[in-house]
Amino acid sequence: MAQTKILLDENEIPTHWYNVVADMPNAPAAVLGPDGKPITPDALAAIFPMSLIEQEVSAERWIPIPDKVREIYQLWRPSPMFRAHRLEQMLGTPAKIYYKYEGVSPAGSHKPNSAIAQAYYNKEAGIRRLVTETGAGQWGSSLALAGQMFDMEVRIYMVKVSYEQKPFRRSMMQTWGAEVFASPTNMTNAGRSVLEKDPTNPGSLGSASSEAVEEAASRADTNSALGSVLNHVILHQSVIGLEATKQFEKVGDYPDMIFAPCGGGSNFGGAAFPFFADKAAGKNVRLVAVEPSSCPTLTRGHYAYDFGDSVGMTPLLKMYTLGHDFMPPSIHAGGLRYHGDNALVSQLYNEGLIEAVAVPQVATFEAGVQFARTEGIIPAPESCHAIRACIDEALRCKESGEAKTLFFNLSGHGHFDMASYDKYFAGELEDYAYPEEAIRQALDHLPKVG
Amino acid sequence: MAQTKILLDENEIPTHWYNVVADMPNAPAAVLGPDGKPITPDALAAIFPMSLIEQEVSAERWIPIPDKVREIYQLWRPSPMFRAHRLEQMLGTPAKIYYKYEGVSPAGSHKPNSAIAQAYYNKEAGIRRLVTETGAGQWGSSLALAGQMFDMEVRIYMVKVSYEQKPFRRSMMQTWGAEVFASPTNMTNAGRSVLEKDPTNPGSLGSASSEAVEEAASRADTNSALGSVLNHVILHQSVIGLEATKQFEKVGDYPDMIFAPCGGGSNFGGAAFPFFADKAAGKNVRLVAVEPSSCPTLTRGHYAYDFGDSVGMTPLLKMYTLGHDFMPPSIHAGGLRYHGDNALVSQLYNEGLIEAVAVPQVATFEAGVQFARTEGIIPAPESCHAIRACIDEALRCKESGEAKTLFFNLSGHGHFDMASYDKYFAGELEDYAYPEEAIRQALDHLPKVG
Repeated sequence: MAQTKILLDENEIPTHWYNVVADMPNAPAAVLGPDGKPITPDALAAIFPMSLIEQEVSAERWIPIPDKVREIYQLWRPSPMFRAHRLEQMLGTPAKIYYKYEGVSPAGSHKPNSAIAQAYYNKEAGIRRLVTETGAGQWGSSLALAGQMFDMEVRIYMVKVSYEQKPFRRSMMQTWGAEVFASPTNMTNAGRSVLEKDPTNPGSLGSASSEAVEEAASRADTNSALGSVLNHVILHQSVIGLEATKQFEKVGDYPDMIFAPCGGGSNFGGAAFPFFADKAAGKNVRLVAVEPSSCPTLTRGHYAYDFGDSVGMTPLLKMYTLGHDFMPPSIHAGGLRYHGDNALVSQLYNEGLIEAVAVPQVATFEAGVQFARTEGIIPAPESCHAIRACIDEALRCKESGEAKTLFFNLSGHGHFDMASYDKYFAGELEDYAYPEEAIRQALDHLPKVG
Repeated sequence: MAQTKILLDENEIPTHWYNVVADMPNAPAAVLGPDGKPITPDALAAIFPMSLIEQEVSAERWIPIPDKVREIYQLWRPSPMFRAHRLEQMLGTPAKIYYKYEGVSPAGSHKPNSAIAQAYYNKEAGIRRLVTETGAGQWGSSLALAGQMFDMEVRIYMVKVSYEQKPFRRSMMQTWGAEVFASPTNMTNAGRSVLEKDPTNPGSLGSASSEAVEEAASRADTNSALGSVLNHVILHQSVIGLEATKQFEKVGDYPDMIFAPCGGGSNFGGAAFPFFADKAAGKNVRLVAVEPSSCPTLTRGHYAYDFGDSVGMTPLLKMYTLGHDFMPPSIHAGGLRYHGDNALVSQLYNEGLIEAVAVPQVATFEAGVQFARTEGIIPAPESCHAIRACIDEALRCKESGEAKTLFFNLSGHGHFDMASYDKYFAGELEDYAYPEEAIRQALDHLPKVG
């Protein structure tokens, strides 16, 4: 029987995270304060521990993974890599398709790779409470798991409309001992001010984030934690790509192209950056970030300084952005809704060292169903973006006869997203191309720098 | 770091299933027809292929697993075994706790181990359509997956109240291409007769099963498939225990006690029977079937001939039973509701060669939450029964100071059961001890034999 799964032993869990900054041709653009001048690390010390702030700005290639983090990683890592024989056969492609499956984590996605690390460093710094915001709950559930593993209190501001309509990720967070609040709440100034204007406000990631940051900033024992966008999150996610490089070694193959979903960038950066070292050394490997057409940050956004959050409280990051007041269309079911992109992903894209492609929603679910019907696993909607782009390339290979090696990150399962699949089957999902006019207007909303 | 996962390579997927009949001290009790005489294999030929009927009555110790079945098994097998370090520490027990995790299958439980095999043998026999009934949908989704893997049509009669209240397992079945009907339907005589009496009938496993069997029996291209109870299902599930024996060898340990959930018996038999060969050869290993107090088949039922289904259409099986008209209490959230038990499980229990324990509902969820908070994975309510019994034993070891080796089957994850966890957290779950009077009355409902 042909090999299907490529497994690693526990002692092959990476001992160090990989930091792409060390292999970038140019230093990362500075992070700016409200005055337009580069901020100092201590500007972030109210909400993050110094160890994570150091990782955020580090230029070291290898950063050791603490043993206690690797011990928790052992509960599901190394994650398996699969050769997608059945998908290849169904497509009739000469391409070889591999995927890394991060849905084996207890929270069902790659998110715990960073949540566990962040909980650890906060615990080491004497922090006993973590707060965060969550939309559909993928990040919130990962942080709940992580807090539980390090015996920390976790408090989650969950966008009210999701809290009410998607109760099962909330149940998951509660099973792991987290407290979950429907945001806006009357527990913070930010929440109260929203409720004063509109007591029936359904909440948004922006206001939930403001509530979490307000709570973290106001208590010495409490910090905030973010699930993507920041460099230290990408750093932690590098375990995905690092394991994948070993797994390709085991089967004596190497990817020509790598596809990963791209929202804030940690999914893509985590899977693809560990291959960037080879690329920087001259290897011919293409790294492709896959984003939704309805939130086409890299493919159609502006490369400019913008706020990291939607309300303009954070320092300014140089990144591809649709404007920090970007509102994702409500018809969009598949995550990846962030208005910007991680700064390192943005800079490498701007320099032409990585690629990006935007895919429409209906086609991503079509690809996800094709995948489920051949490989079995029902993919998360985010992951369906990478599957779509990979299948498209495999079909191009079928036309050209090229036997390329393709690799994508199956970042999570879709067990908590079946309502979106239902909508797909009912023909209720629509494609939505982000309008040209909105992109032009976003320029006017960007903060003025320098 | 201490070893947490015990993995096997794909080439260690068992090549043969293990049949416990070969090691039983007495031949299995005969299956009887309505006339009280042993039935012949062809009595089942209208709904099962001959290859499965042969497995049903086989006394061979080893039955080869077809390569095409092993190829599909490769999508998730061998499943990992874990050493539950964090759970042990939290309990403060000297016992060593291991568990086998079957939730890695695409359908999230052990059920596909048999669904894949059944689909294969039916396909080989020229059958192109499979029909089955399902309650909450764990078996239905596994058969949908299996049918898709062998390019067969799958039609599922899903109990109407579950179809409406638990839409996500239905979505899962549809993702794998199955047609799902809310039973009772007006497509069969059985369904129409129920609807004539009560057009708002919410359905039951009994009537859904009658619809499925009617359709299977009436079409030459269509067969039925069952998810537990029958011997060939237990046979297929033996891959769980067979892998576990190898995994214990790898770590140089051996279980003193094995715990597995017991409803129809295939979960328990699959995990525990492969250790029975050692037990028959004199090894001191205790096999414990764990059932709900609300459906205490082995611990309080009658050992007698009874129908396998709830409406009295099947041949008579000698088994522990609460009466084929047993109605599980509506407060019971955790599966394992079958009125009887597999005949081999029943016979071995009657002969004192295996043990059984009944656990109350609230305590099973309590154990499941303890497990999730230490080991990460959120267990299926069925699996929580085995966890409860295993934790109880680990706590007894704490008192006695014994360092026993305990093993349980974590047969599935709880991602589609979060509504039950919600009820647990809300204090809405109740314990229910099946009443003594109902057990006495069941005696009168047993079919008269001989």
